[in-house]
Order: sequence, then structure tokens, then C-alpha cells
Amino acid sequence: MSAAGLETAFIDRLIRGFRKAPGRRTAPHESDAELLVLPVDHPANDGGEAPLLAVTTDTISEEISCGLYADPYQAGWVAAAACLSDLAAVGASPLGLLVSETLPASLPASFLDTLQKGIGDSCSTAGTYVVGGDTNIGSALSITGTAIGVVPERMAMTRRGCLPGDVLYVSGRPVRGNGFALTAFTAGSGLTGGYFPRPRIREGMLLRGSASACMDSSDGLFATLDQLGELNGVGFDLAGSWEETLDPASLRAAAERGLPPWILLAGCHGEFELVFTVRPARRTLFLERAAAAGWNPVEMGSVSERSGVMMPAAEGARLVDATRIRNLSFGMTGDIGKYLEALLREERHMKGAWHGTVFGR
Amino acid sequence: MSAAGLETAFIDRLIRGFRKAPGRRTAPHESDAELLVLPVDHPANDGGEAPLLAVTTDTISEEISCGLYADPYQAGWVAAAACLSDLAAVGASPLGLLVSETLPASLPASFLDTLQKGIGDSCSTAGTYVVGGDTNIGSALSITGTAIGVVPERMAMTRRGCLPGDVLYVSGRPVRGNGFALTAFTAGSGLTGGYFPRPRIREGMLLRGSASACMDSSDGLFATLDQLGELNGVGFDLAGSWEETLDPASLRAAAERGLPPWILLAGCHGEFELVFTVRPARRTLFLERAAAAGWNPVEMGSVSERSGVMMPAAEGARLVDATRIRNLSFGMTGDIGKYLEALLREERHMKGAWHGTVFGR
Repeated sequence: MSAAGLETAFIDRLIRGFRKAPGRRTAPHESDAELLVLPVDHPANDGGEAPLLAVTTDTISEEISCGLYADPYQAGWVAAAACLSDLAAVGASPLGLLVSETLPASLPASFLDTLQKGIGDSCSTAGTYVVGGDTNIGSALSITGTAIGVVPERMAMTRRGCLPGDVLYVSGRPVRGNGFALTAFTAGSGLTGGYFPRPRIREGMLLRGSASACMDSSDGLFATLDQLGELNGVGFDLAGSWEETLDPASLRAAAERGLPPWILLAGCHGEFELVFTVRPARRTLFLERAAAAGWNPVEMGSVSERSGVMMPAAEGARLVDATRIRNLSFGMTGDIGKYLEALLREERHMKGAWHGTVFGR
Repeated sequence: MSAAGLETAFIDRLIRGFRKAPGRRTAPHESDAELLVLPVDHPANDGGEAPLLAVTTDTISEEISCGLYADPYQAGWVAAAACLSDLAAVGASPLGLLVSETLPASLPASFLDTLQKGIGDSCSTAGTYVVGGDTNIGSALSITGTAIGVVPERMAMTRRGCLPGDVLYVSGRPVRGNGFALTAFTAGSGLTGGYFPRPRIREGMLLRGSASACMDSSDGLFATLDQLGELNGVGFDLAGSWEETLDPASLRAAAERGLPPWILLAGCHGEFELVFTVRPARRTLFLERAAAAGWNPVEMGSVSERSGVMMPAAEGARLVDATRIRNLSFGMTGDIGKYLEALLREERHMKGAWHGTVFGR
């Protein structure tokens, strides 16, 4: 399980020729947003601290072209939320969002108005603003957001820092993104309330100083845990029943389709929950702070020395090779039928493997 | 000529529902990059000044899909330079570039390597770095750059501020962008040396405190002058001969194709020169500073009270409705044949109008 994910390797190849910026505090893959030193003079006796700039860019195009976001309001909403969620994961406070849109000339004005309203409302919900942009004409609708924020240097969170024994949390019940993708692409009843994920800006700021590592769940829960595991040389033991930890509507959608719950963790359409770890000694204080803010994070398990993800299952725990699962999705976006088949093959593979490598609970 | 350009009106419609960010110092259309207040504590006795953040985003897709940037190195180079040029136009010093790429799955690895090298080399030339990005799979290659920089608040330049009588300059001989487009799309010899425009970061920083208004020439010279004229309620008198002010290779390419030189100002494929104005009283000091830095800006004329652009011509000066010319290109990218026809009709229209509204020189 030490092999890096295919996507990580692909990105490493793309960026291998780039020089590292002297003011960049983050290494590739190590944080959801990049952290840059601002050239601001701060007198030594100031007492204050210069903030780091947090910046992140994200394009929404595959999800539109494959028909997943057929609603322009949703496409706009998610495009903004995806970037703002990356700011949340480093604990940053947003300064604004830039939006570059490629628009087919044939789009009706009402479609554009609705798209823009989705972008604006998503920003408002996160307490921020569109501060600039660019428009182009092109054959396929594509929206690139760039979010900009600030975070005090010693408070910034990255994906690095968790240790075996840390408690694993998710900011809210995860897997709704995959629940949505499942209901959008397969027959059966859908999620009530649709899919309008709120970036966890407020929660990210509350996590400053409490979380040992943080990453959003935008690529799905296994992909997130795989990336955190790879970066920190650890694994995860998931605990509790799926009914207690996962989004109930998504669980119902999976059950109705005869799919095991873990498929919802394996799918590559995540949502914008924060997946983070807390040292056991800080846990009580963290939970008090969260409760005081009216926030109930979901405890999902703990960090293990062993790599991989140990899942609870009726017949006993199962060790999942999250890298393998994550790689199944690479290059397969949009063809959920093919992807589900691959995952169900994996289910059979794991059931077979489980008898050989029992991890009883 | 008071009617706003079609593109300006289109963008106004797109952004009409967005709330204005409290920390945003720029209004829509008024600057090449957005200027944002950084939430940095600066003691009153500090003496220093908190910088403004300069941010700008730009997508290169039409130019690729229409075959203009068939060379991946050039596509990467221009994508980075387009954003960095916007920073130059506000006088900002770059902190870095974010790049979000949509890549067809079929692109060979060598194409990707060359594209990335173009991006990296373009950043290096401007003294900056790629600091982050995103990759997606999609049917058409598209590159969205977001450049981030800083500029001292009182030194930031915008497109607003020029007055009648100000001297009009361009950072270097303009119209090479249209010369390149012309040779790429029509038969005949091309530009030697190709088209690898260098963003004028150093010149933009030298202009701090000297320029009354500044904008880059990325949409072509008439579009730039039209935008500056509209924002400031002024017009421009161009002076000197085209041979003294425009890019010689582009002039030769136009002449070889039997086209009048002004077509090169009208085309919508600009380059990344800075178009700026200087108060007459500051002109000598500015030219001394430029010469000391080894820079020879091109004097193009002056700012007039009258709107429109007065062009020198063999038969006497002609007043051009730059808004009208700019609107010809809106939505017509990629079909240079159609666009050239429209421009040549405009040539005949102006020749007719000229006899009625003579502006002798």
C-alpha cells in the first residue's frame, strides 16, 4: 500500500519542472490550499503576526459535461463551494473568490442568470464575495474558481501532522456527495433536499489549534483517508456503525439499490466535509469548543500505525486498500456504471481476502 | 460613442447580482487586476504601508480550440503571461501563479511536458513561480491561470485617472499579437521569432507613481483605448507614423497581405504591452527613470477631451469609433476571415465618413 495514488503520480509528473517559490510554505499534495508568505513588514515588537495567504483553484467541468450538475444553480453553487472548502481545510478566513467561466454561446440568458445566482449564493453562505473574474466563449461550460483567504501562520492546518492514536473526525455526516451521484445516475428515489454542500469555513476556523491534520472530503472519504494515510505514514481504524456516522439519506439510497454502505465511502464524488484528526489529550477541549459553537462533529474512529483503512463490518472488521480503491476511479469520471461494477468486483475481492486476513472486532 | 462595449454590457449582466466585497478597492472594468485590502494590522507609527493584494484570473481556451496556439509551449507560455500582464498593469509585484488545467485524456505525455515547460518558463521570465493548481479531464484543452501579487496602496495603478493633455505611451511597439494572428490564419510569411510575449512586470513597477492610468493591450489597441476612453470620459489623438510606433514585422505582414496598418490596432488579439498615460508635468522625470532602467517606451500620442480615437493617415487624420470596432469582434473569435471582412467594410465606411467630417492635420 506504499504506492502513491495514480493521480498523485500524474500531478507529480506535471509539476516536476516547476521551481519552488521561496515564499511557499506548502509542498505539493500536503494541503488543500497553498499557503504563501506575504511580504508585509511586521516590527518585531508588534506582538501581532503576519497572516499567510491561502490560495486555491478548482475547475468544475467533468461534473457538468457528464450530466451530474444539470441544474445551473447547482453547478454555480458547487464551483464556488469547492474552492471555499479548500480554504476551510487550512483554517483560512476568505477574502473573496475569482471566477473564470467558459460559456457556450448558445446558453440562454436565464441559464446564465441562474448559474451566477448559484455562485453568488454559495459565496454569501460562506460569508464571502465574488471579487473578479473572466469570461470566455467555448464549446463546453466550465467554471474555474480561485479562492483567496488568510490564516495566522501558526494556526494554518495542513494534511500533515496526525499521529497514531489521534481521534478521527468528520465535520458532518459524510458521503452525501456519493449519495447524490448514485441517485443522479441510477434509477430509484433521489436525495431529498438535493446537493448544495456548505463549505465548512466556520468549522475550519474553529479547528485552528485543535486539529493535527485536516483535508476536505471532496474526492470521497477513502480517497481522503488514503491521501492522509500516505502523507503521514499511518492508517485509520473506522469505528461505530454506518448508521451512526454516514448521511442517512445516502445510506437509504444505497440500500434501495442493493449496494453495501462502504460503496459510499469509495465513490469519488465527495462532499465538502472536513476530515480531521485531534490528539487524544486535546479531545475534551476541542469537543467543548465545538459544542459551544453549536457544532457536533462526527467521530469516525482513530489513526493507526498500520496503513490502510480498517472498516467495521457485520462479519468482523475488514482492511481496505484505499489506494487501490482510489485508483479505480482515476480517469473513470462520468461512467458511474463502469465504476460501480469495478467497486462491486472489489467487494467480492475483499470478501475473499477477508477470510484469509481476519481482523476480528 | 457613449454606448458601452457589448462585452462590458455582457459582463455587467453576469455580475449584477453579486454583492460588492467590503475589502475590494476596484470597481468592475476599472483595473486589469482586482485590488483587495489585506487584513493586516499596521501600527499607526509603523511608517510602512500595508500592501494591497492584486489578483486576476484568465482562461486560454478559444485561442487553442481555434488553432491559434497549436504549439503547446506557446499555449502554456501565453496562459501564464496573460495573468502576469494584468498584475503588471496595476504595478504589482507577483507572489505566484495558480494554474487549473483541463486536459483531454488523449494528450500525449510529450505534449503535456511541453505545455508545462511553457508555463514554467513564462513564470521564470517574469521572476515568479507556479504555486499551485488543479487538473481535470475534459474534451478540450483549457488553461486557467490566476496570478497573485502585491502593490503598495498609494502606488497601485488602475484604468482610471487620465486627463486631456496626458501623454499616451505603450511599453513597447504594439500590435505584434494581431500580427501573429494574421500570419497564423492567412497565407503568406509569418512573424520571425514567433509570439512569446513577456509580461511587463518590471515596467509596471517602474510606472508606480508616474502613470495616471494603465491597462494592458491584451484585447488589441483599439479595445484598450476604447475602454480607457469610456472609463475616463476622454478620447485619444494618435501621433507619429505607424512605421515609428508599431511592431515592424507585423506591419510587413499586413502590407504583404494588402491590409492597411490600422487593421493591426483593430484586431482583438492583443499582446501584453502596457498602455499608459503620464501627466505632461511628470513626463521628463518619467522618461529619465525609464532611460535609467534601459527602457524605451513608445510615445503614441495624447489624451483628448473629444471621445474616439484620432488616427494619423496619409490623407489626413481620421476619427475612429473604437467602440464600434471593438464590438465587431465580440463573439467572432476564431473566424478571422469573417472578422477581417467586417474590418475592411469598416475601412470603406470610414473612408466615406472621412470626407464628411474632415479632421485635417
